[in-house]
Amino acid sequence: MKHIVLLRVLAMLLGIVGLAMIPALVLALAEGDQTGITSFMYPIVLSAVVALVAFVFGKQVPMRFSPRDGFLLVSAAWALTAFFGAIPFLISGYIPSLADAVFESVSGFTTTGASILKDVEALPRSLLFWRSMTHWLGGMGIVVLTVALLPLLGVGGFQLLKAETPGPDKDRVAPKITATAKILWLIYIGLTVLQVILLMIGGMDWFDATTHAFGTMATGGFSTKNASVGYFRSPWIDGVSTVFMVLAGMNFSLYYRLFKGKFSDFLANSELRAYLAIFFIASLLIALSLRPLYGNFSTAFRFASFQAASILTTTGFATTDFDLWLPFAKSVLLVLMFVGGCSGSTGGGIKVVRLVVAFKQAANEMRRFLFPRGVFSIRLNGKVGRKDVVYGVAGFIFLYLLIVLAVTVTVASSGTDLTSSLTSALATVGNIGPGFGVVGPVANYSGFPDYVKWVFSFAMIAGRLELWTVMILFMPEFWRR
Amino acid sequence: MKHIVLLRVLAMLLGIVGLAMIPALVLALAEGDQTGITSFMYPIVLSAVVALVAFVFGKQVPMRFSPRDGFLLVSAAWALTAFFGAIPFLISGYIPSLADAVFESVSGFTTTGASILKDVEALPRSLLFWRSMTHWLGGMGIVVLTVALLPLLGVGGFQLLKAETPGPDKDRVAPKITATAKILWLIYIGLTVLQVILLMIGGMDWFDATTHAFGTMATGGFSTKNASVGYFRSPWIDGVSTVFMVLAGMNFSLYYRLFKGKFSDFLANSELRAYLAIFFIASLLIALSLRPLYGNFSTAFRFASFQAASILTTTGFATTDFDLWLPFAKSVLLVLMFVGGCSGSTGGGIKVVRLVVAFKQAANEMRRFLFPRGVFSIRLNGKVGRKDVVYGVAGFIFLYLLIVLAVTVTVASSGTDLTSSLTSALATVGNIGPGFGVVGPVANYSGFPDYVKWVFSFAMIAGRLELWTVMILFMPEFWRR
Repeated sequence: MKHIVLLRVLAMLLGIVGLAMIPALVLALAEGDQTGITSFMYPIVLSAVVALVAFVFGKQVPMRFSPRDGFLLVSAAWALTAFFGAIPFLISGYIPSLADAVFESVSGFTTTGASILKDVEALPRSLLFWRSMTHWLGGMGIVVLTVALLPLLGVGGFQLLKAETPGPDKDRVAPKITATAKILWLIYIGLTVLQVILLMIGGMDWFDATTHAFGTMATGGFSTKNASVGYFRSPWIDGVSTVFMVLAGMNFSLYYRLFKGKFSDFLANSELRAYLAIFFIASLLIALSLRPLYGNFSTAFRFASFQAASILTTTGFATTDFDLWLPFAKSVLLVLMFVGGCSGSTGGGIKVVRLVVAFKQAANEMRRFLFPRGVFSIRLNGKVGRKDVVYGVAGFIFLYLLIVLAVTVTVASSGTDLTSSLTSALATVGNIGPGFGVVGPVANYSGFPDYVKWVFSFAMIAGRLELWTVMILFMPEFWRR
Repeated sequence: MKHIVLLRVLAMLLGIVGLAMIPALVLALAEGDQTGITSFMYPIVLSAVVALVAFVFGKQVPMRFSPRDGFLLVSAAWALTAFFGAIPFLISGYIPSLADAVFESVSGFTTTGASILKDVEALPRSLLFWRSMTHWLGGMGIVVLTVALLPLLGVGGFQLLKAETPGPDKDRVAPKITATAKILWLIYIGLTVLQVILLMIGGMDWFDATTHAFGTMATGGFSTKNASVGYFRSPWIDGVSTVFMVLAGMNFSLYYRLFKGKFSDFLANSELRAYLAIFFIASLLIALSLRPLYGNFSTAFRFASFQAASILTTTGFATTDFDLWLPFAKSVLLVLMFVGGCSGSTGGGIKVVRLVVAFKQAANEMRRFLFPRGVFSIRLNGKVGRKDVVYGVAGFIFLYLLIVLAVTVTVASSGTDLTSSLTSALATVGNIGPGFGVVGPVANYSGFPDYVKWVFSFAMIAGRLELWTVMILFMPEFWRR
């Protein structure tokens, strides 16, 4: 019974993803792009049939989901979406390998932005539009997932903020989730539209502006150009992208509070302040090291702040081949790869709030040595953090490191050098996209053997779903009873 | 008053280190090595005078140390010892730079084994003997520090084991510390003598056998040969070294229990089992990847197990240039760099017990998601771990990562490539010695500018003193009142 209900939810989701393919189909039709038409027609029809069958024959049963159902549903939904989203790539013939097509689709929906395409510009515009659309859909999914759904399952470090977000409580779940989701999506859509306009003012056509706005707001990083944002050589476009990447890396529920006029809450938010501080300090350090390269500080700061924002927020756009920068600048980017965006944003990585909690926890530990009888709690935004939340943060950072190292060893087993192995692991688990070396900003993920690509796909989904959601499926206890 | 007492303790310590220079002086005298005689005569006389003055004029006051005094004393003791130990290197003229001499001495006393010497074999035997002696003294200090002294200060993750170790309780500190120290030192000396005999059976002369046993039991890694243990090209010597590195990485209080006939406690120890499992799995993985290189599995396993033991236990000896191995083998070594030895051993790094606790904590976190009303505790050796200890472990791993990344950025600022920067940071904070690239097993630390060497020296001491002991000195609260 329960499984039928779960299947029905998945079928409806497939229908939504199919609907999201329609703009790409319309584009293909408008441009008489026969490949595009076939590529999208089949999956759209397939998803429509599946969703219709589920809608007509499935019963609308009000039921209570257990945490187990929740974890299973979320993981299955992302895996299914990723496979389904790969179909147009496969049909078109531009990405003939299954491992590659799924990688590209996973990379899109998880807002990672790593690509196996050697020449992006060779693809028809309809496919490129769909590729960027996967980012945007993924970003929508993530905002709702982390702000509204995952807290219900008790996952990872966000409970600290739960009381503050306009999130649901456990008694009246469905209506509150819907209401929250609507507000968050309005903010998301509003910011996207604003960015599209600003990018078009900077000289982009509607197509480039829309796809790049999709990639920015989702902190994804897919571009329609081989040289990424660097193709446009425009300080305005660089600046707009930098600002919107930083905006996309902020907690979306903070915007909601901002609209409600709660400016002080916005400014006093511990995570936001740490996030902005990290961004500015990293930009400054990189800019100082780049000044000799670019001749003057302002140009150096333009490139430095763009790249710092791109890596910190886990977007992955590039305006230059930062793999050629001095080791110091690269080491700062390496540190940013461990950070990530804010909780409740579309950014990936460990997330700033977890690092803030861990930092305060380490400081408290030292205070405990000095004053063994003292009682020290962790305060965040003026509220005392719950002990089990601090526990959760600790476990998360350890698990993150463990998975990054496991992926590193797997990548290295294919003969890849250490720096590339480590940074590709960080770039996939953290949903960043580019790393250094063979996965640098002007390189791509095409050269890896299939088994490594599947591991990357797994890593991207695990990272995107806050690790726990996926790793819990590997616990024997999960499958017992 | 208190400060006078602290100074007196430091002066007495200086006297002990001076005494430890006498064997090197005797060696210099026996070999008519004029440089050696001058190099050791001055510091020995200096330390004798200082210790004598402190002994005669200082008053023996029974006093209660506060935690603050404890942290200050331990940090000051290691810094002072390291500076004093550098004097023979400076006087001899073989290491004329202060930054280099202190680096070498710190590397010795912290049992790191990183060296700025380009040609070790050019040094007179008396200096080489002293260099290895710093390891052995440091190892002695560490065993007592981690098993007996630091738990009193409540530092780091070892409290879990406190009830089991023959350690002191807070009421009758001094006599119990002395008793514990005596037992541990006897074990340490006994194992060293045993290794010297076994190495001499393998064909080493007394000098090489003694210095290498010092380097092994302290998990230090200084060798008297440029090619490290690889110089001897002996399967027997490799085997003996591997076994004794593994032995030195075990908790010394477990040997004590073994002597008391408590075999079951020994075998049931969670940390020991995890440690041995990590060692064997890593050896096996590396050996499998090296088989094509060495022709057969047994030779591959000889080199693999030696290197796995050397990095895992943070010794740092080498029998071959492992920087030339395949990326897979190197990635396994990279993972081992994050692990380290057991608590209460002479090994550095994060330590196995902390990783075991963090792993169990992460698993519990997932159980909590599945069964939100369940109560889950962490068991270690059949005993329930205290919550604040789990907190401490979490804070430690975060702080460790933070310091490693900070050192990485500092090293990279000197223009060093990322892999070398990251692994040199891991190799110094973790007291390992060699890393990859410019700090690989056949390279050395001579090429860095002085400011990087000072940061390395700081990192080695901080890592050796379980981070907290040193980092706490940077808290404003420490200096208040």
